[in-house]
Amino acid sequence: MPTVADLGEHQLIQRITKRLASAPWVVVGPGDDAAVVRPRRGTFEVLTTDALVEGVHFDCRFVPPDAIGHRALAVNVSDLAAMGAEPRSALLSLALPATLEIAALDGIMDGLVRVADAHRVIVIGGNVTRSPGPLMLNLTVTGTVRPRRALTRAGARPGDEVFVTGSLGDAAVGLRSLQQSCEPAASREASYICCEERYLRPDARVRAGLLLARNRAASSCIDLSDGLADGVRQLAAASRVGITLDAGAIPITDEVRGWHERHGGNALQTAVAGGDDYELLFTVRRSQLGRLRGATRRLSNLPITRIGIVTGGSDLLLSDEMGKHELPVGFEHFR
Amino acid sequence: MPTVADLGEHQLIQRITKRLASAPWVVVGPGDDAAVVRPRRGTFEVLTTDALVEGVHFDCRFVPPDAIGHRALAVNVSDLAAMGAEPRSALLSLALPATLEIAALDGIMDGLVRVADAHRVIVIGGNVTRSPGPLMLNLTVTGTVRPRRALTRAGARPGDEVFVTGSLGDAAVGLRSLQQSCEPAASREASYICCEERYLRPDARVRAGLLLARNRAASSCIDLSDGLADGVRQLAAASRVGITLDAGAIPITDEVRGWHERHGGNALQTAVAGGDDYELLFTVRRSQLGRLRGATRRLSNLPITRIGIVTGGSDLLLSDEMGKHELPVGFEHFR
Repeated sequence: MPTVADLGEHQLIQRITKRLASAPWVVVGPGDDAAVVRPRRGTFEVLTTDALVEGVHFDCRFVPPDAIGHRALAVNVSDLAAMGAEPRSALLSLALPATLEIAALDGIMDGLVRVADAHRVIVIGGNVTRSPGPLMLNLTVTGTVRPRRALTRAGARPGDEVFVTGSLGDAAVGLRSLQQSCEPAASREASYICCEERYLRPDARVRAGLLLARNRAASSCIDLSDGLADGVRQLAAASRVGITLDAGAIPITDEVRGWHERHGGNALQTAVAGGDDYELLFTVRRSQLGRLRGATRRLSNLPITRIGIVTGGSDLLLSDEMGKHELPVGFEHFR
Repeated sequence: MPTVADLGEHQLIQRITKRLASAPWVVVGPGDDAAVVRPRRGTFEVLTTDALVEGVHFDCRFVPPDAIGHRALAVNVSDLAAMGAEPRSALLSLALPATLEIAALDGIMDGLVRVADAHRVIVIGGNVTRSPGPLMLNLTVTGTVRPRRALTRAGARPGDEVFVTGSLGDAAVGLRSLQQSCEPAASREASYICCEERYLRPDARVRAGLLLARNRAASSCIDLSDGLADGVRQLAAASRVGITLDAGAIPITDEVRGWHERHGGNALQTAVAGGDDYELLFTVRRSQLGRLRGATRRLSNLPITRIGIVTGGSDLLLSDEMGKHELPVGFEHFR
């Protein structure tokens, strides 16, 4: 199979850029020293950057190329969603091992272009280099938000209620199911396909973030890349508050419960500590619950669940029928 | 020696962010899901992204940490300079091997902060992840340019004169000198220190780019990351013109000539094909040469040299006392 090393740098760049859409506000697109864009009037700009590294963030044995491209853009778009921003442009920086097949590169672009189209993100530039080690994708995504409408992690106050979009633990179960499928003795089950899809091709909650920001329903917001416990911890630290979660309220799908019934372990623990769900965790002042209902109505397909309350002090607790416990520590990527 | 693996992710991020400056236009800086900035009025935005990969773009045996941080930001700022843009913000994405010493990380930040301060670039956000292989730095830099003042590669026309800032081949000689210093039998010479410095800590020609764009002196511009031949080829292709260079006019320093006298090889060839100089190559309409003189006067420390002429057709030629020859092919990074 031909690899990227069979293409010259210019051919490689052409192969990538011919897949990309443009827009009237792009004054200079890919191919020059830098991109030039006309800003959107009356908005602040929101920028984020995030890398996907082979062997750290994905395993090529069970993550197909299109899912790599999908995730690389989706995790960045999710960061913008958490700020209540509307995505606009992206810069794609690739470090490619010489052994990467051209078909795999095309697959990566398939996934990336799919997410870009879904969220109307224009790839305005980038960089391609060789990697002597793992495949790496670094995406920088920009978006826009009205002045003073950006959602940060720092706005929660005691008494605010805590909400989460969608369901939790699905991506963690999906990852374990995919990992099992690579084990030699694995008898493949097809029944965790929704969880696997959640892991492989996460949806960024852009519409939810936009609605929460535009009608000022949320007082703070974060996206759950490293799990609920980690998100709660970071949001509470930035806002200098405590949070008590109601264990029984945490939204867990039947597929996640079914996995644990079959394979042991604890669905609640997976929902609290499992990463990669890319749901939004946010807080709402009690006086603004009407605004939240307005936003929820317009998100008919995405459940919004109240899972706890913001408190004074700095305690992070999980409350269940047995009482209140310390929230488990979320994992840190680096160690 | 303690390594980055001895720090948790949050400690690591704190160690980096405490080094960073801020500015009044940064509404939300590092530490949230994304950065929020107030755009600069009346300008278009210019964005570029570029990666530095250990083993591809630098060799840790002779490139000290501060030079890695310096280069990572400078090569991106140089792309903005080539567009005539004023640098403004940066996003820093790091993929760190667990074996990287904390002192090396601090050194990288020293170099990066030095370039950021020199060009008044504010690091508004970023990402840190672990690398199972090489150290990688991905920088995204934004800047501003007045509408219709951006310099692109595409504006050269037959009859325009071709200019270059500074001198060429220095960084290539610096690299070879540094490589020799690692060889077992090396008797270290201190006399190529300027060339080595050019390789290790390149200056981005921001002021030159700004002056050429603001007074509309240049018709096209590119920065020389992969050598003069490659830059000429790319500028000519984008502008759909030919270019004839005058070999005798290409600015070569005594240090570069001295290296070749001692070690053999050809100074002109190094100046034409050697990479990493980050000088600006640009074209000027004959009717605008007065504007160029205006810009040159304000760049008293930076030589500007006329090295050729833009022609019709698509031939890329090097002319010397023996006649006209085809311009050698510049190297491509990828193969």
